[in-house]
Amino acid sequence: MPMLDLSPDELLTTTRAVRKRLDLSRPVELEVIRECLEIALQAPTGGNLQTWHFMVVTDAAKRAKLAEIYNRAFDEYRAMPHYAGKKFQDNAMRGRQQAKMADSAEYLAAHLHEIPVHVIPCMAGRTEGVQTVWAATMWASLYPAVWNFMLAARARGLGTSLTTVHLMFEKEAADVLGIPFDKISQGALIPTAYTKGTDFKAAKRQPLDDVLHINDWGSQ
Amino acid sequence: MPMLDLSPDELLTTTRAVRKRLDLSRPVELEVIRECLEIALQAPTGGNLQTWHFMVVTDAAKRAKLAEIYNRAFDEYRAMPHYAGKKFQDNAMRGRQQAKMADSAEYLAAHLHEIPVHVIPCMAGRTEGVQTVWAATMWASLYPAVWNFMLAARARGLGTSLTTVHLMFEKEAADVLGIPFDKISQGALIPTAYTKGTDFKAAKRQPLDDVLHINDWGSQ
Repeated sequence: MPMLDLSPDELLTTTRAVRKRLDLSRPVELEVIRECLEIALQAPTGGNLQTWHFMVVTDAAKRAKLAEIYNRAFDEYRAMPHYAGKKFQDNAMRGRQQAKMADSAEYLAAHLHEIPVHVIPCMAGRTEGVQTVWAATMWASLYPAVWNFMLAARARGLGTSLTTVHLMFEKEAADVLGIPFDKISQGALIPTAYTKGTDFKAAKRQPLDDVLHINDWGSQ
Repeated sequence: MPMLDLSPDELLTTTRAVRKRLDLSRPVELEVIRECLEIALQAPTGGNLQTWHFMVVTDAAKRAKLAEIYNRAFDEYRAMPHYAGKKFQDNAMRGRQQAKMADSAEYLAAHLHEIPVHVIPCMAGRTEGVQTVWAATMWASLYPAVWNFMLAARARGLGTSLTTVHLMFEKEAADVLGIPFDKISQGALIPTAYTKGTDFKAAKRQPLDDVLHINDWGSQ
């Protein structure tokens, strides 16, 4: 597969959540997804246990069912008082960013069934009732691989976004895909397609110094 | 800072857990840690809420206290029947890998206080009692940034490893660092130092086909 010529810093700073700039008419070869997943497997796992699983959904009828579940969850999420799209309305820059993100998330939800591939990273075990140290260890053994997948995808001209809202109805999605819900946790749903153009830029973030603490929390 | 000349795939496949090949006599400039954290901030967060915090520990006395906590937690972990170093003794290849990892983890624990920088990624909120969908969203908003930090560090000749064992005594570590435990969760402890040499290779992993499912869990 042709690779984008990106330096490490370019790769790590321009892998944006791509929700609108997806080429929904261009098929994604299973082989390129496999390449990205081989790279995902190079991420670390707690105790090197490699407890991950990856569900790749290309079947149109299943993608339609997942889109229905996703949209039902998104409807509930949007109605919540803590819905992220409503946050920071008292901060002009962040308010604009949140509005733009909410608009983009609406677009993603409306077009989810048209996105050619969904990747659902999963892991062995469930976190309900598990002590925080071990639940954190379980998630810390999945999300680095998820991000490695997304970075590898970016390097191949693919766009992704990390969504978790469908987990509100995780059991329903498990039933659609035959995932044994009692012993396997889904961690996300990653809609994946080629992007329109590849000229993505770094995001504007809140300043590092707002969240950096040196030797003591109160050092800020 | 001089950057290694790594392609995207080289970067994403050679960022290994470095526990032994750390140059403990070479100081790590705060500026290079800041660069890596600026890059960490480019990772995604749920609803773009950027709920992360990063505690950087360079103070020798605090590193010694953290090392004491870490070792006490590691002693408990090592004694557990599910200790990862004991797994796969019936599988020659994985058994060797686990033994090598356990040896390397012992080395890390024994030398933790000598490692010049620890980065402790944190997030606003606690996951205890939180619904799975939102706990997953919280961790999914931290560990991609953690892995981005580790990848950015690799590109700068630094070695890291993602450890979570000290979370067994998270409150004690919070007290050492002044972290408000009731509202801030620690997610890991990342010992960080320059590596001895930079010629790291991709890891041998279990085959992708063992964990890949296409459209249905039973597709394997």
